[in-house]
This record gives sequence, structure tokens and C-alpha cells, in this order.
Amino acid sequence: MKAVQFDRHGVPADVVHCVERPAPGAPDGDQVLVRVLACPINPADLLILEGRYPGPEQLPAGGGIEGIGEVLAAGPEVAGLAPGDRVMLLGRANWVEQLLCPASAAIKISGELDPRQAAMMKVNPATALLMLRDYVDLAPGDWVIQNAANSAVGRHVIRMARAAGVKTVNVVRRQALVEDLLGEGADLVVIDGDDLGVRVRAEIGEAPLPLALDAVGGIATQQLADCLSNGGTVVNYGFLSGEACRITPDQTIIHDIRLRGFWLAGFFRRGDMDRLTQVYREIADHLRDGTLAAPIEAVYPLEQVKEAVAHAHRDSRDGKILLLPGGPLD
Amino acid sequence: MKAVQFDRHGVPADVVHCVERPAPGAPDGDQVLVRVLACPINPADLLILEGRYPGPEQLPAGGGIEGIGEVLAAGPEVAGLAPGDRVMLLGRANWVEQLLCPASAAIKISGELDPRQAAMMKVNPATALLMLRDYVDLAPGDWVIQNAANSAVGRHVIRMARAAGVKTVNVVRRQALVEDLLGEGADLVVIDGDDLGVRVRAEIGEAPLPLALDAVGGIATQQLADCLSNGGTVVNYGFLSGEACRITPDQTIIHDIRLRGFWLAGFFRRGDMDRLTQVYREIADHLRDGTLAAPIEAVYPLEQVKEAVAHAHRDSRDGKILLLPGGPLD
Repeated sequence: MKAVQFDRHGVPADVVHCVERPAPGAPDGDQVLVRVLACPINPADLLILEGRYPGPEQLPAGGGIEGIGEVLAAGPEVAGLAPGDRVMLLGRANWVEQLLCPASAAIKISGELDPRQAAMMKVNPATALLMLRDYVDLAPGDWVIQNAANSAVGRHVIRMARAAGVKTVNVVRRQALVEDLLGEGADLVVIDGDDLGVRVRAEIGEAPLPLALDAVGGIATQQLADCLSNGGTVVNYGFLSGEACRITPDQTIIHDIRLRGFWLAGFFRRGDMDRLTQVYREIADHLRDGTLAAPIEAVYPLEQVKEAVAHAHRDSRDGKILLLPGGPLD
Repeated sequence: MKAVQFDRHGVPADVVHCVERPAPGAPDGDQVLVRVLACPINPADLLILEGRYPGPEQLPAGGGIEGIGEVLAAGPEVAGLAPGDRVMLLGRANWVEQLLCPASAAIKISGELDPRQAAMMKVNPATALLMLRDYVDLAPGDWVIQNAANSAVGRHVIRMARAAGVKTVNVVRRQALVEDLLGEGADLVVIDGDDLGVRVRAEIGEAPLPLALDAVGGIATQQLADCLSNGGTVVNYGFLSGEACRITPDQTIIHDIRLRGFWLAGFFRRGDMDRLTQVYREIADHLRDGTLAAPIEAVYPLEQVKEAVAHAHRDSRDGKILLLPGGPLD
């Protein structure tokens, strides 16, 4: 079968390649054998290939932190999963045709969900949901501000916030994105730059803005913090700038601004299966009712993984890049 | 009577001067008339004179955020304060011979306390106590790390932590301070510089270090954060570097490091009189039993306020500078 592998860290398209490998055997004990259907390429995948994000401790290794598949066979101790079930894969190294994993690392999802959308539910929608939920108690009418607002996470934030009656200020770097995000349901879209606090407050007045979501770091963190109400929290979840987050002592001391971080892997590591099941049930509901839908720019077979990661690495895309290890879907 | 006044922001010794002014009249209603005995010159006082810290909204204004005095007379509605009582002054503009204030802004303290030490109890000991108490639940055996450890706050942190069975890592910039702080009760004193995290962990191993106190900002914040246990909190309470606090996304995201700020004025503004009374009762106990004692380098009369603030502004001092508005104390 085909599988993606990387032997060293470096430019993603240089270090990944598609190899032939024996298919895994029959599942033992609590294992399931899964045929992988679809896997998005996430920014974290690219960072892992570059060696800039915690990844496999030994190389060569497989890639791909996200994907869905179909159960082909279940080990004798498995309860609750059967051949034909659609599953979301919690483990890593999903860019393969087939894999064996513990049943506890395969969350059953409805077969009715569009598999391309369901393939993207583990990382970005959960990131958006948990950041909106776990740091600040947001009330309807409150505002949230985020940068990199046109990312997949950013679009989920816009849609989930709107569904909860929470308004969003969205910081982007290109004028062309303003109409696009207003179409997603954004309440306010502003262009990145100096005086962000002044410009945002000119629009929303003294309305409560207790939460900022920062995917950038560096001076961008400070600019988001300038918009927050006193006592507000910046949640940093990315480092697109490659720089340390900055928060001024005036912000921390006088305005009681707080900086936290969000890491989805930390959520998985805590291993709270009840919370995990509840979070993904809510996300599946959002996918089913249309609240969440992520644009897809292109799909690739595993053999074209180099082209796929190069495409995912481009600065300006209008949607996700997906790998389809089993070939085209329906 | 004599009073200190500043007419503009600038170099502290340039902008302050001692003026003659009519003494306040008899207290009305809930007012008390207080003869001021002793006032320390704090870093915040200097920053206010420089215009780098929230201060009086209109100039000219008086200075001095801290002081103690003796009640000379109490208005007809005052209960619980009488002439001769020693009081700690909660208001600002204390660098005067006499002042009128609401009785609620004068906390009665024991006349047994050394007035020079009692003059310094409002700001630094309360800062140390609240930072050790309000952010992280510290258990005996836990470690705390702080920079600018030779400051008045730093020395109080060492002494209060030790009294609670909590160990301290103290970051200083001069080798000469190592012995000094070990003498105060510091468990570990390290010289500022690169690889702070590596050097500190070489000493304390994997011991829990959930709290860092940062008076510096800039890269120093990041260096303290490098020493923290996962999930630890940096409390920023000063900006000696003049730079924004830096925390890397690796720290926030992977290690769940949190950044907060501490502002004593915020504590006063919340106006929780029960908590306030309890905090100062505990500090008075610490002064009385010798846990807390701040070194004093020099005392000045109000007429020499320019010399006094210039002295307080020097980089390397071995103790506080006090103003004695009523002349020498016994």
C-alpha cells in the first residue's frame, strides 16, 4: 500500500515522499483496521515537517495529524465499532492507505456527514470551539477579536460565535478578504496595522470585548490586547510571525490583560473521553446544520504528496488542501 | 506648612520642589487631620513624576503614594480613630506636613511598630504578599522565581515565602548581591543571563516551580517563563527594562505558561475593606515578629526632596530613601 514518509526536517515538499509499504495485518485485541478516506494538510503538519513543532521523536516517520476513514475490521475485544463504521482518527501518521489503531483512538461519526468536511473536524473546529469556550465566559452581545481571521480556524470562530450570539472583530491583511469574511457572518473586518485598538474602539465603542484569539505572535499579540476590555484574555494558538508574543506591562498591570495559550494536543493528552465525545458531537451537529463548512481548494492522491504540501504551503489560498489516500470519493 | 509639588513631568529631581502652603483647617464630617511622620520614595513615585505611570490628572499636584502619620483631630462623624492614633495613609500626595483625608483612607496601625518600617508597609509588603497569594496555590516545598530580587519587594518575597515554607530562586545582576540575599533567606541566587532555564533546572531538578514574579519585562519575562513548570504563571508587576513582556508561543501553547499582571492600585480600587484590613493585619504581624524588615539607606526632610528623589533614582542602593515631613523621629 502507499504511505507518506519523511526522513528529515526541512522544506515540506522536499522532505515528504510517498513510499510503498506492506499493508497492516488483521487487528488484534482492541485494535481496529481502518481504510483512510480523507486527510487535510494543516499548518501544524507543515511545521512538524519543518521541525518547528513537536512531532515524531524518531525519523523516518509518517505524517498527517488528522483524517477520517472506514473500519475494515475490528479486533476481538473491540466494542462499539464494526466494519463499515465511519471514524475520525485521533492519532498521527494518517497519510496512509490503511492503518491499525486502538479503538479508543477512533471516534465513531455519522456516515451521513460529507467525508471531506468530516475529515477536517478534529483540529480546526475543535480549536475554535474550545478557544471560545474554555477561557472566558462569553455572553450574547459580547465581542471577540481574532487575527489571521481568514484561516480555517478563523472562519469556524466567525460561524460558531455568530451561532452563539457573540460578535466578531476580524483582523486580516488584505482588503480582498473583507467582503469574503462579511459573507461568512463576520460583524466587523479590519485591516491589520497600527492603532488597531483605536480603530476597533471607534467602531464598537465601549462594548465588552473580553477575548482575543492570536495566531500570529510578536507585535500582533500586543495589538489585539490593545482592543480588549480591562481584564480580558489573549489566547495565543499560533506563531505565524515566528516571534515571541508581546504584551506591555501597561496592558498586564494597569489593564489586567492576561495571556494564555491553547494547544489541541494538550486537550487530547488530558484524555477526558466524555468531554471529547461531547465536543465532537457538537461539531458534528454544526457540520450537519451547515453552521460549519470549510472551503476546499484542491484534493490530491498520496502519490502527489509533494505537490499537495507545496500547495498547502502557499501564502494565499482560498481553502484547504486534502489528501485522498483511497482515491476519489464517490 | 511645607509640601512637595510637581508642575510638569520630567526628571524627578528637576520637577519636584518643596513649597510653603497654608496648613489644612479642622476636619469636617468623616475627615481626619493627620500629621505625616514618614514616607518612602517608591519606584512608582519616580515613574509618576516622569509621567510613565498613572498619576494625578491635573498638574501641579502633590506626590508620594505612601506614608504613615498620627491623627491630630477627627471630624464629628468619625468612629474608630482618635487624636494620637497611628495611621497608614491609603491616599496619594502624602509628602506634606499635614493632610486631611476621609477616615476610610486612614488604616489604624499599632503605635508599637517602628514608624520607619510601618511607613513602608502599604506598597511593597502588600505587593509581595498578594503576588504570592492571589495567582497560584503554593504548597510548602514549591519554588517561586523572581527577578530584580534585591528590590524591596524582592526581599519581602524571600522572607514571606520562607515563612510559608516556599523556596525562592532569585535572579540578580551583580555577584555582590548573592551573599546578601542568601543572608535574607534566599534558597538560590542566580546571575541574570542566557540559559536561565537550564541553569535553574540544573539546581532544582524537576521540583514544582509554578510562579514567577517579573519586575523587568522584555526578554527577562521569557527567561523566567523558561524556568516554570508546565501550567505556571508569570506575574508581571514592573517594567524596569522599559520593554514589552515577551512570552514565546512555545511557552504559551506547548507549556501552558500564563502571563498576568499585578497592580496594587487595582487592589485598592476594588475597595474590599475586609480583605484590605486582613492583609495589613498580617503584614503588621510580620513586621512585629521580624519576618519583614526593609533596609533604609537615608532619610531626608521635605526641604531636601530634590536630593531625596535623586538619591532614590540611583541604580545601586542598599536600602530605601525616606522623607520625614515632621523632622527626625525620636
